[in-house]
Amino acid sequence: MAIRFELPQDEMPEYWCNILPDLPDKLPEPKDISGKSLEIMQKAMPKMDVVNEFSNERLIKIPDDIYEKYMHVGRPTPILRATNFEKYLGGNLKIYLKMEGYTYTGSHKINSALAHVYYALQDNAKFVATETGAGQWGAATALAGALYNMPAHVFMVRTSYYQKPFRKYQMDMYGADVHPSPSDFTPLGKELLKKFPDTSGSLGMAISEAMQYALDNDGKYIAGSVTNADILYKTVLGMEAKKQMEIMGEDPDYLIGVVGGGSNYGALAFPFLSEELQKHDIKRKYIASGSLEVPKMTEGEYRYDYPDTAMMLPEMKMYTLGHDFVPPAVYAGGLRYHAVAPELSLLMNKNIIEARDYGQEEAFKYSVLFSRLEGYIPAPETSHALPILKEIADKCNETHEKKTVLVSFSGHGLLDLGNYAEALNFK
Amino acid sequence: MAIRFELPQDEMPEYWCNILPDLPDKLPEPKDISGKSLEIMQKAMPKMDVVNEFSNERLIKIPDDIYEKYMHVGRPTPILRATNFEKYLGGNLKIYLKMEGYTYTGSHKINSALAHVYYALQDNAKFVATETGAGQWGAATALAGALYNMPAHVFMVRTSYYQKPFRKYQMDMYGADVHPSPSDFTPLGKELLKKFPDTSGSLGMAISEAMQYALDNDGKYIAGSVTNADILYKTVLGMEAKKQMEIMGEDPDYLIGVVGGGSNYGALAFPFLSEELQKHDIKRKYIASGSLEVPKMTEGEYRYDYPDTAMMLPEMKMYTLGHDFVPPAVYAGGLRYHAVAPELSLLMNKNIIEARDYGQEEAFKYSVLFSRLEGYIPAPETSHALPILKEIADKCNETHEKKTVLVSFSGHGLLDLGNYAEALNFK
Repeated sequence: MAIRFELPQDEMPEYWCNILPDLPDKLPEPKDISGKSLEIMQKAMPKMDVVNEFSNERLIKIPDDIYEKYMHVGRPTPILRATNFEKYLGGNLKIYLKMEGYTYTGSHKINSALAHVYYALQDNAKFVATETGAGQWGAATALAGALYNMPAHVFMVRTSYYQKPFRKYQMDMYGADVHPSPSDFTPLGKELLKKFPDTSGSLGMAISEAMQYALDNDGKYIAGSVTNADILYKTVLGMEAKKQMEIMGEDPDYLIGVVGGGSNYGALAFPFLSEELQKHDIKRKYIASGSLEVPKMTEGEYRYDYPDTAMMLPEMKMYTLGHDFVPPAVYAGGLRYHAVAPELSLLMNKNIIEARDYGQEEAFKYSVLFSRLEGYIPAPETSHALPILKEIADKCNETHEKKTVLVSFSGHGLLDLGNYAEALNFK
Repeated sequence: MAIRFELPQDEMPEYWCNILPDLPDKLPEPKDISGKSLEIMQKAMPKMDVVNEFSNERLIKIPDDIYEKYMHVGRPTPILRATNFEKYLGGNLKIYLKMEGYTYTGSHKINSALAHVYYALQDNAKFVATETGAGQWGAATALAGALYNMPAHVFMVRTSYYQKPFRKYQMDMYGADVHPSPSDFTPLGKELLKKFPDTSGSLGMAISEAMQYALDNDGKYIAGSVTNADILYKTVLGMEAKKQMEIMGEDPDYLIGVVGGGSNYGALAFPFLSEELQKHDIKRKYIASGSLEVPKMTEGEYRYDYPDTAMMLPEMKMYTLGHDFVPPAVYAGGLRYHAVAPELSLLMNKNIIEARDYGQEEAFKYSVLFSRLEGYIPAPETSHALPILKEIADKCNETHEKKTVLVSFSGHGLLDLGNYAEALNFK
């Protein structure tokens, strides 16, 4: 029995899905307290990113050039059926996984990186600049830069740069300029280093440094999650999944995934949710999870807050632990963000999307189990979705119902094996 | 234009291809100088491995259970067309890549690991034991063990165990018992450690330790290259590639790849070569390359030699640098083997397969170039095939001929980024 379902490259969907016009309420506007942040955002980011951020079109055509590049980085990705894991959970679930680890950078991040870099190129930017923590986003930016022949400056949180070098090496292979942030490459970085000589860096510092460097040198700053535009670009994966499921004759009862900033889960869920919101009839269940160590999903407040710890960007209404929340050193680096994307937050607030948070120990128990049963090593972030499957399976085993689940499987864990080894005490 | 060509899972070929009956001469018999080595081999290895080693059937049916497991580790793998690299080389080549990096362990090794473990299970072995250097084979054995619920003991060359831990962590995720060889886990290991307390280990020691441990404890020893049976099991990839090319309406003028022991190149080439040998009409060009630092392909002698530095196995006639050849520390660990598989050696000796050797510096220049043009990071071993493409392209650019090339792209380089960083001086 086949357990992998491909979509041929010439059947890849031609549109991104924009949830904005179908949200049950109007999305609260960004708030520009300083009076400068909207202007900074508009100057720093590619023009079309700002246009797409506020678009009311339901479907936005993927530019031909991005479409072609999607094929060149591993799109469409397959859907796998996790038959061994199904058996382990009692046999009442059909589990389908939308596998973003099949992209060449190993996660969903490349889907929006290509779009941001393409639009920066349209603006005649001299380069793109961005920040990265664990490195998935930096690697995606580096590859997008390589394929568009656009220089990429990646400001990588100092401690990750030195302690978790594998994703940095991946960026090096792709030819990006990777700087340990704060860096002595920019005036702002030098200033920060002088002020805090022993700093291990932070995502906030790295964002400031990247944005300032872009503003000062005719570059464009690009951001890899949270914004409406970024989620929009990633919906190519959800559009694919919807088409794949339709071809298979399947319709998921549950759509599940993990939330760092929210772009991966939104990317899968929105194409399904959009049609349900239009009909005012939501039959599918949407459940997303985060890290219990960074419990924004279950303990965050729904209020205005800065998306960036540097407070350079406009405030947005979202579930947040506070922009100054200091996340503990969890190994799922992509889940350390303090807030949930505004679109997802609104849907959570309307009880359309349910939230969960799981501890690292529980999630990693499933990483090991899944690797041994299915052969595919999940990213630490991705494994936080697996306890939701257990919850659904337990319910089905009680009621003897059969259900179909579609999981946004955000990436593979091959470059995270060092983290697994530390957390699981491999000798 | 689509650049990826899939074979649906239910169209995966059902047969392995055995080249033995179609070789231009009878393959020289193994030579049992000690009078014990054949017996040791027969006792240590799975019974069906020994049967398949000497089979004269052209096509051998893949057992249903292995066929199903192939689907569960990422088979069939796609063929990609390297359109950007084609342009770089002048536009006269069509370059098709058979992508074994799409298997879950990241290389072609899993294709035979599943078969060896399956046959060990048929023999009611208590466990399988094997050696590994760089770790691709160990990782494949670990996953095969996990999927068959068969304990796996991997004896990993001591220096790799400590210095290149990522593939070891991969084996840990799959639940294998990984021992730094020589290890204090076996009597032979303890003896070796007592004799050479500061040893960094060697593949020879690791083979001895694994084989002895299997012989003494009702396990089976499995080997991941060189033997006829091992190449046979891997031909699933070549059988797929042949079917894929036929569906695409393409026929390669050149079949190229790299040789460590020879199983990856043989696996791709044999299904194509087999039909040509049967017709006594060889029109396609077969070119394989190795490492100039381990120049067995171009400087090896065609003579009887031990396949293992431990001299436990029967001698075989092959191109060899001598079983006591000490390979330098090249980063393409999979190319450090001292000899070429007997079947390939015979075909090289008959000038049916041409040989090349390329230096690490040249190969890695192509790794970087290829990563930036195509987005896919090749394994260090795989990149040694890329200079052959340049050679063919140069010829075509002179004569204005168009040619089609099929490359055995043995794996991805994500777990080799540390080696790339060292060799290429990433900061």
